[in-house]
Amino acid sequence: MTATVLERVPLNPQLLASLRQRLGDRLSTSAAVLEQHGKDESYHAPSAPDAVAFAHSTEEVSDIVRLCAQYKTPVIAFGTGTSLEGHVAALKGGVCVDLAQMNRVLRVNAEDLDATVEAGVTRKQLNEYLRDTGLFFPIDPGADASLGGMAATRASGTNAVRYGTMRENVLALTVVLADGKVIRTAQRARKSAAGYDLTRLFVGSEGTLGIITEVTVRLYGIPDAISAAVCAFPTIADAVDTVILTIQSGIPVARIELLDEAQIDAINKYSKLDHKIAPTLFFEFHGSEAGVAEQTELVKAIASEHGGDDFRWATTQEERSKLWQARHDAYYAALALRPGSKGWPTDVCVPISRLAECIAETKRDLAQSTIPSALAGHVGDGNFHLIFMIDPEKPEELAEAGRLNDRMVARALAMEGTCTGEHGIGYGKMDFLLAEHGPAVDVMRNIKQALDPDGIMNPGKIVRM
Amino acid sequence: MTATVLERVPLNPQLLASLRQRLGDRLSTSAAVLEQHGKDESYHAPSAPDAVAFAHSTEEVSDIVRLCAQYKTPVIAFGTGTSLEGHVAALKGGVCVDLAQMNRVLRVNAEDLDATVEAGVTRKQLNEYLRDTGLFFPIDPGADASLGGMAATRASGTNAVRYGTMRENVLALTVVLADGKVIRTAQRARKSAAGYDLTRLFVGSEGTLGIITEVTVRLYGIPDAISAAVCAFPTIADAVDTVILTIQSGIPVARIELLDEAQIDAINKYSKLDHKIAPTLFFEFHGSEAGVAEQTELVKAIASEHGGDDFRWATTQEERSKLWQARHDAYYAALALRPGSKGWPTDVCVPISRLAECIAETKRDLAQSTIPSALAGHVGDGNFHLIFMIDPEKPEELAEAGRLNDRMVARALAMEGTCTGEHGIGYGKMDFLLAEHGPAVDVMRNIKQALDPDGIMNPGKIVRM
Repeated sequence: MTATVLERVPLNPQLLASLRQRLGDRLSTSAAVLEQHGKDESYHAPSAPDAVAFAHSTEEVSDIVRLCAQYKTPVIAFGTGTSLEGHVAALKGGVCVDLAQMNRVLRVNAEDLDATVEAGVTRKQLNEYLRDTGLFFPIDPGADASLGGMAATRASGTNAVRYGTMRENVLALTVVLADGKVIRTAQRARKSAAGYDLTRLFVGSEGTLGIITEVTVRLYGIPDAISAAVCAFPTIADAVDTVILTIQSGIPVARIELLDEAQIDAINKYSKLDHKIAPTLFFEFHGSEAGVAEQTELVKAIASEHGGDDFRWATTQEERSKLWQARHDAYYAALALRPGSKGWPTDVCVPISRLAECIAETKRDLAQSTIPSALAGHVGDGNFHLIFMIDPEKPEELAEAGRLNDRMVARALAMEGTCTGEHGIGYGKMDFLLAEHGPAVDVMRNIKQALDPDGIMNPGKIVRM
Repeated sequence: MTATVLERVPLNPQLLASLRQRLGDRLSTSAAVLEQHGKDESYHAPSAPDAVAFAHSTEEVSDIVRLCAQYKTPVIAFGTGTSLEGHVAALKGGVCVDLAQMNRVLRVNAEDLDATVEAGVTRKQLNEYLRDTGLFFPIDPGADASLGGMAATRASGTNAVRYGTMRENVLALTVVLADGKVIRTAQRARKSAAGYDLTRLFVGSEGTLGIITEVTVRLYGIPDAISAAVCAFPTIADAVDTVILTIQSGIPVARIELLDEAQIDAINKYSKLDHKIAPTLFFEFHGSEAGVAEQTELVKAIASEHGGDDFRWATTQEERSKLWQARHDAYYAALALRPGSKGWPTDVCVPISRLAECIAETKRDLAQSTIPSALAGHVGDGNFHLIFMIDPEKPEELAEAGRLNDRMVARALAMEGTCTGEHGIGYGKMDFLLAEHGPAVDVMRNIKQALDPDGIMNPGKIVRM
């Protein structure tokens, strides 16, 4: 999709001077830095900001936003730049606030199973920090994204079927509002009925209502037993039916991931693996020794009923890491199938009862296209992804991928699903948001208008003003 | 607390005529009906509406709200009237919309583990309806509240430690907005990253942003094995330490409830039981046969370390029902300890690591007061309740209960807790909301202003305008 054309006003020199005075050489206008901050990992047209501010504290972010507010200048938050729907593109120019250097783990309350971190801390960094505590943070969108970015896009990933998404796992946020004021959205209590749920409002708001500078997340005890397994199926329908029955039986799998034959072929080549080229499920089981044994027996029986091969086990930490790294590299692996291609990733999520049908119809549609694609998904949630590997020089390929995407989203919506399970709206899915939510988008617009009357927070994303 | 004095404008006769034309004899202005709809189950001063409309459909609610909006007349939603912070008091008069007759279960998707109901369906009614499906809806605030009311107050209760609160268990809502427009907040997919989380915004909004008319909730498979047990402890600290260690060990108890000796005495007398008069935990375990056995062994060992008596088991459905009914009747049981008294219920929630300290300090404070009280709580979440049994004729008792409540809330906030874990704000805890959230309350006010510019939706609750 080409970027919506928005009016771009040059940065006011006085604003630039004030920012420079405040940040010194942590304010950059170098072409390379600007370019890097205007793009994400998708095919969406990038759009560079006019300056990048590397913030070190909530107070600094507050000062930056307050200055920008004076000049009605756009402010775009930036974490690791791994989003996929054009979230960080500075469509109207303005100041990008890079939070990567706000990377301190502020506090771990092991007894309460929570941690508070600055927004730039990544999920791997947090888990590394927690290594000796017996605790872990489960949300894993694949990329080593920042916690602030994950909160802002309501990320989820492979473990969500067991542990929930960022929606369920953020306890509280510190947010800099559009006028520079700083709020804390909640206390550390596990639950609260005190007023509107501001935490959940900012989770998924993609920087359009404020900038998240600190995140308090839930932690979990590392299970006594963890095992992972791979199972190939004769058809994708068999694999999906196995997922559906597993979920409907209430078996608390920690991960249940589908990869179609194209995706398996891609990761075999990319990660030098030897999986059978077939629709395949990757499982992970968490629990007590007895609990994991019980879960695996139940799932093996279900898989076997659906023609699944014997499970290939990954029991050591090293084997498991290799398995999941390959899964996480699926995107890059798919792109490597077609050298020089650019990825168009998209995702939808449907009620689990419609998953088989939705995937089957989507695969039929893809089979009639010449655009290469691969399918993978967090299917326990009813969530799956496509990656189109397109030649960026060929507009007809972009157009064709667009039509396939349109049809997949329309299909998901018709099945009471959502236009995005975890990637978010950015500027890539704004029309789909309207198709999905209809008049509820007006409520979103009212909220945006109320919290950001001058429209300076990541303009051109989620809702059109 | 006495009701905030708000200006009360008499109902416009033309509005009354229009409503009567639309609803016929389902519009009532009889004194008894008005009185019944202005009060909840607490000590808060009631305030009757000027008319009560018994709605039969979302369209009717929409028409009622649209008419009221024309005359800028307050609209207050009413479910079962079991809330506890003055939520339903018509502080400025206006029209109460009683949703009790919107009590159809619209759809159960057993395969997707969800159900959609009209707002007036109660939790017991839903579970009765589900009886032959093998599924159940776990959220249980004690009262047989309506699902719409439970969503509106972000209710939780005894099962929340395992299954979450209404926040986690509402998938989507149908809401009538302040101008009468109707929105659906989400599709049926388990997760979504599509735009602002309107579902979570309306969950807990207490009718101040719109009226919830339909609720889609998550369901769960009835576990293969369920068992419940009662265990008495030498001191309340021993009981609380047992809870803390159980939670920190990650044991997935379904219920873990604390009752102090006063509360046990009360339910013994009220429900004709013979529990030892001592601080006591009520447990329930859900899972496979092996899983439940494993959980109970672990918890028994922890309880035993803390001086707990032998577990008294309730294994049959009938025994369990009796046990939990007694727990649910705790409020009425406490009031019966002091005939003629009125209850002042309050609740707070703190991080679990602070629970023992918070309860101990609270008990010390209570010991120095002459107001009788009882303590019970959903302690697995760090949430506990006090009931003061006050003589409503004695202003000094109201004042003293108010001071005790003030101190308990201040103590919880100082321990990073919340002023209410599950009862909500209503008009009883508006000052505490401010103490807890500070400048974040301005954000709540902005949202209220944006979605209800004329301030007609349940005025005088949550935030002062």
